[in-house]
Amino acid sequence: MPIEEIYSPTEAKIGQRRILLLGTNNYLGLSFAPECREAAHEAIDKEGTGTTGSRMANGNYSGHRALEMEFAEFYQCLSCIVFTTGYQANLGTISGLIGAGDVALIDGDSHASIYDGCILSGADIIRFRHNDMADLEKRLRRLGERSKNTLIIVEGIYSMLGDQAPLAEIVNLKNAYGSTLLLDEAHSLGVLGETGQGLAEKTKLSSEIDFITGTFSKSLCGIGGYCVSNHPQLDQLRYVSHPYIFTASPSPATIAATRVALRLLRNGSKLREQLWRNAQQLYSHLKIVGYQVGPEPGPIVATILDNPQQALALWNGLLENNIYVNLILPPAAPEGKSLVRCSVNAAHTAEQIEYVCQTFSKLYPSIIQ
Amino acid sequence: MPIEEIYSPTEAKIGQRRILLLGTNNYLGLSFAPECREAAHEAIDKEGTGTTGSRMANGNYSGHRALEMEFAEFYQCLSCIVFTTGYQANLGTISGLIGAGDVALIDGDSHASIYDGCILSGADIIRFRHNDMADLEKRLRRLGERSKNTLIIVEGIYSMLGDQAPLAEIVNLKNAYGSTLLLDEAHSLGVLGETGQGLAEKTKLSSEIDFITGTFSKSLCGIGGYCVSNHPQLDQLRYVSHPYIFTASPSPATIAATRVALRLLRNGSKLREQLWRNAQQLYSHLKIVGYQVGPEPGPIVATILDNPQQALALWNGLLENNIYVNLILPPAAPEGKSLVRCSVNAAHTAEQIEYVCQTFSKLYPSIIQ
Repeated sequence: MPIEEIYSPTEAKIGQRRILLLGTNNYLGLSFAPECREAAHEAIDKEGTGTTGSRMANGNYSGHRALEMEFAEFYQCLSCIVFTTGYQANLGTISGLIGAGDVALIDGDSHASIYDGCILSGADIIRFRHNDMADLEKRLRRLGERSKNTLIIVEGIYSMLGDQAPLAEIVNLKNAYGSTLLLDEAHSLGVLGETGQGLAEKTKLSSEIDFITGTFSKSLCGIGGYCVSNHPQLDQLRYVSHPYIFTASPSPATIAATRVALRLLRNGSKLREQLWRNAQQLYSHLKIVGYQVGPEPGPIVATILDNPQQALALWNGLLENNIYVNLILPPAAPEGKSLVRCSVNAAHTAEQIEYVCQTFSKLYPSIIQ
Repeated sequence: MPIEEIYSPTEAKIGQRRILLLGTNNYLGLSFAPECREAAHEAIDKEGTGTTGSRMANGNYSGHRALEMEFAEFYQCLSCIVFTTGYQANLGTISGLIGAGDVALIDGDSHASIYDGCILSGADIIRFRHNDMADLEKRLRRLGERSKNTLIIVEGIYSMLGDQAPLAEIVNLKNAYGSTLLLDEAHSLGVLGETGQGLAEKTKLSSEIDFITGTFSKSLCGIGGYCVSNHPQLDQLRYVSHPYIFTASPSPATIAATRVALRLLRNGSKLREQLWRNAQQLYSHLKIVGYQVGPEPGPIVATILDNPQQALALWNGLLENNIYVNLILPPAAPEGKSLVRCSVNAAHTAEQIEYVCQTFSKLYPSIIQ
């Protein structure tokens, strides 16, 4: 979907029309935040457009180290490593933590970056059924002693259906079987928890999570990723993790803007309220109208269709009404489903959400027969 | 090596001192180019700090497409794909082009991003001895019919010793055995060839190379990477390559600055002259003084030491004289060697290079006994 011009966190020119964006990861609506843009401008003037080097060589500026300290302090963790992309955060963390002979036990709906990190690690990869705790326990039991060399990987909010991991049960299982737990808060950072840390904060289980990864490119409107942990293993990744070592460090503008965005996110309880009001409204409305939706409300509101034709018709209908959403067809969508996925954000106005709801209502009879 | 403050393409504050930077990948010295910074400023104001989405979703802005067209036009190729990092360019291209049952035949000194791309692909990985054409042919011959499912991967300039691939011989072999050839111009973009395309342009073999990858984070002073090709396969990567699909697209500032930097690079013959003057001077001087250096001159001038202690002493001696270079110890350096690696750029003045040469001379007796 080519965007010709971007007007704001909620509107863009697509084709020749002004379109309402309802399919971005801009959860707090900060992509145009004046404070972040100002910080980026200053960094460009003071430090140039790029570092031209890796963190291990000449790309280790004071801003990179400050951002790591700020993330560590935010999560009250000993250490943080910043990666150049969120994809590389998962790739670098996972492939650095486990290797041949170890086991990666991952949710069936895991993001591709998790799956690719596991492949790169050389560990054995086992999937458990999405959010199915009986299946997770069965697989841990079968592993026997190997459960102690097992990294369980789950996500705070899943990108397909927008549902959350049952973290309390997962923590109980990981403790019972002596495994290690990595939680990817990519879609939950800024969205869940009082200060926006994610699902771990919301469930008050932060101290039980071994490694937390996340991204700058959703709520923080930058590009990059991070891993925080209290384990001394984390800092060792700096010496072994290819996706950390063999890549140029993030640009000064990205680092500066992300540092400010993190401050706005931590103090963003009003933004989170607005985000959740929008999410609840859209989710409830779609359910009442009769659409099949994901298991729980959240910024990602997925409409589940019976077949690709229906999904395509709905996606087209929305676009004709100047609303952009994500179309996800098999095999990308889980269990052979077809999804029309909406993502709301804190910058959507009540009027915009109301218009979206009305449009979904209007389209229902022609789509669901 | 923590950089406290960056002053220019050639100077930074390290510790409490003003240090001459002789270990960056800033080959054309463009990191503070006013035209690039201006473009980045404009993009931040017009398009925000980040796209918050992948190219497949909401992160496909007109700048991203324009940059791809400009790279394709520069290389006179049908297509270009832009990736979010150079690491992901190799990862995404290689893992998208080959798979289980195929063969990746790679130079022994290949960059980690090439190696990781091969692992992710599932193909069989075979290394040939660095720049050893007899060894490459032997391995192609042994592959028999499988040589037709073989992707040979080489680099324009190798990052360790700064030497170039013997491209004409490699092209002959790949044609004789029906293989496919990928050339990584990460360190040669902007450095080799009349318009800075790299080794393929310098050797007039562009039409013989199947896929060319490169990075924005060296000569272009941005962050990101690309692949150009005339093969229709390239555009198919957009639908299968995880490191392309499952990552947020580069920030507007990065794209805008990189577009301008590419223009400066193409018209940068004066910068290339200055770069090569600096490279020749340092390389010749080190050789005359008695240091063991890499096989040929270039922006990367590697001093090869007998053992890690010597390398560390030289690195320390240079730093005490306010010169920053890269220290590379086994196993990172090839064949168990220890390297003190210098990288010169077009922004280094004659005085700076002269000072570096004098310092190397001064240190020689105490280092090489």
